[in-house]
Amino acid sequence: MSARELVVLGTASQVPTRHRNHNGYFLRWDREGLLFDPGEGTQRQMLLAGVSAHDLTRLCVTHFHGDHSLGLAGVIQRINLDRVPHPVTAHYPASGQRFYDRLRRSTAYRSTVRIAERPVDIAPAVDPPGAEAGGPTGEATVADGELPGGPRPVAGQPGAAEQPSPGSRARPAWSVAGDGFVLSAARLSHPVDAVGYRIDEPAGVRMLPERLAAAGISGPDVGRLQREGTLRGVDLRDVSERRPGQSFAFVMDTRLCEGVHALADGCDMVVIESTFLDEDATLAREHGHLTAGQAGRVAASAGVRHLVLTHFSQRYPDATQFGRQARDAGFTGRLTIARDLDRVALPPRR
Amino acid sequence: MSARELVVLGTASQVPTRHRNHNGYFLRWDREGLLFDPGEGTQRQMLLAGVSAHDLTRLCVTHFHGDHSLGLAGVIQRINLDRVPHPVTAHYPASGQRFYDRLRRSTAYRSTVRIAERPVDIAPAVDPPGAEAGGPTGEATVADGELPGGPRPVAGQPGAAEQPSPGSRARPAWSVAGDGFVLSAARLSHPVDAVGYRIDEPAGVRMLPERLAAAGISGPDVGRLQREGTLRGVDLRDVSERRPGQSFAFVMDTRLCEGVHALADGCDMVVIESTFLDEDATLAREHGHLTAGQAGRVAASAGVRHLVLTHFSQRYPDATQFGRQARDAGFTGRLTIARDLDRVALPPRR
Repeated sequence: MSARELVVLGTASQVPTRHRNHNGYFLRWDREGLLFDPGEGTQRQMLLAGVSAHDLTRLCVTHFHGDHSLGLAGVIQRINLDRVPHPVTAHYPASGQRFYDRLRRSTAYRSTVRIAERPVDIAPAVDPPGAEAGGPTGEATVADGELPGGPRPVAGQPGAAEQPSPGSRARPAWSVAGDGFVLSAARLSHPVDAVGYRIDEPAGVRMLPERLAAAGISGPDVGRLQREGTLRGVDLRDVSERRPGQSFAFVMDTRLCEGVHALADGCDMVVIESTFLDEDATLAREHGHLTAGQAGRVAASAGVRHLVLTHFSQRYPDATQFGRQARDAGFTGRLTIARDLDRVALPPRR
Repeated sequence: MSARELVVLGTASQVPTRHRNHNGYFLRWDREGLLFDPGEGTQRQMLLAGVSAHDLTRLCVTHFHGDHSLGLAGVIQRINLDRVPHPVTAHYPASGQRFYDRLRRSTAYRSTVRIAERPVDIAPAVDPPGAEAGGPTGEATVADGELPGGPRPVAGQPGAAEQPSPGSRARPAWSVAGDGFVLSAARLSHPVDAVGYRIDEPAGVRMLPERLAAAGISGPDVGRLQREGTLRGVDLRDVSERRPGQSFAFVMDTRLCEGVHALADGCDMVVIESTFLDEDATLAREHGHLTAGQAGRVAASAGVRHLVLTHFSQRYPDATQFGRQARDAGFTGRLTIARDLDRVALPPRR
């Protein structure tokens, strides 16, 4: 089992079909497990996929349409029933607090586990205030203290203050520190308030054995050099190179907007809705959705390495068309047309 | 497709398994369609079973534990999405109004269909006040006016005022008129407020061709005699016999109690929980559940014709044991150990 993988739990837009459950996406990322957009029936899809309530550390909801969030009720109850021993944090658009509250208490159960609530409270402006000040790795916006041991410093190692994927795009405007990553969010464009999510692992350093040998550093001294930055006149930067962090984005129900680009920018993997085919672009815009071609173009321009298309309207019997249109739009990376219970490993490190 | 049949949508107690979804039971009864205890995922199970939102006229919840009611949210949203043109009425324990309200508005959707609310408001006493005054066919307790054309008179034909299944048991204490039946409810015994449901078709008359011929009544005169009760000195009762109405009961999470017997009494079909096997009777009582043997004994003493066992704890790998214990307890009628997506026809009329 890969330490970083996507487990697809459901892929249908709006209503379930015989072969596609409502949405649901589990991202295993080292010691964390993020459940994105649990639609109705996610509890059972988790069982079928071998994901347990104990695997969950975060619940991330993009918006409060039922096909993206009704499953939250069952998942939260299951976390309680199974007495998950670690804290679990829920993220969702702050404007949907009332929906979260109803889902959390929708039926009678014994509440044994505290689910921390860390709503995404970004302003509806296209260029949200504070977007320049905070970035995915900016300490100023790190506000989550729910993980064991408190928030992890995200600038705690060399290179961590760098942008994981520098670019000219607007940075996502809200972020919290995870266990070895920063989770950020950006506003999307949908008939109801919606946000997308992004995970960035801070960049690290990769030691270069030849240079270490040439500098005469070996054994425990390598660790000392890493910790201290210099050792006997040798600078860490001279015997190492930057190891880019991995990144992942989850872009659900939205029209094309700045947030889509900001989230996808330079990601190793992007899970993105492509509800419609290009011939229905007008419908897509009207209903606040993307077409497969739009998703492909975004991914191509953002330099995405592995694109996962999902959230297909049931009007199209043949899902392979979504992949064809994403390719026609110029995307040349790895491409997955998601099916329920697919497991998709993150691409190897750059 | 039978005009009166049970479609089993889910059969698992507490948590879903690979082969059993959370609860869900659809009863097709002529022009009505009653959905009992929709657990999470019922929307998709309906699709798999070929039951559409348009088939629903009533939603009947026994209690607000998630495995019996979380699916209400999705079902109500689906009724709206599919713009079901006829009224739909929801029944649930009145004490759970807050849960119903949260489920109904748990996420954002366009509300286009009015779901009438007719909660079951029976007192928690063992012998509830008014139990003598109102019965399954008692006009005094008929309070539902949601069906097209208003409430149906339940005493409108000969024999309708009779008890469909006379006996010494306490009568259920709450009832509303359906389209050709009376839906009643009785209190059960579970850690949260719970009720069971029962459907009774009023008794009718069956004309006897030989007696009609001997009395010289034929053609349109048969209808006149039926409407007027007498014709040319011939009394309807002399050329007809009583045709018993059919009856059905739905008995979920409960310990053995008076309500269980009252609901099952004389029914053509009873769907009943048998969460535990007899060897775990202590656990069953502690958690407010029945064993398979208890269910079988109730059905035997109540004269049930077709018993449907369901709501199995996942602790037992072999469901056939439930049937064996129900038989050992003396039940000799037709027996179904429910599996998801089973279709079970009501027994032919007596």
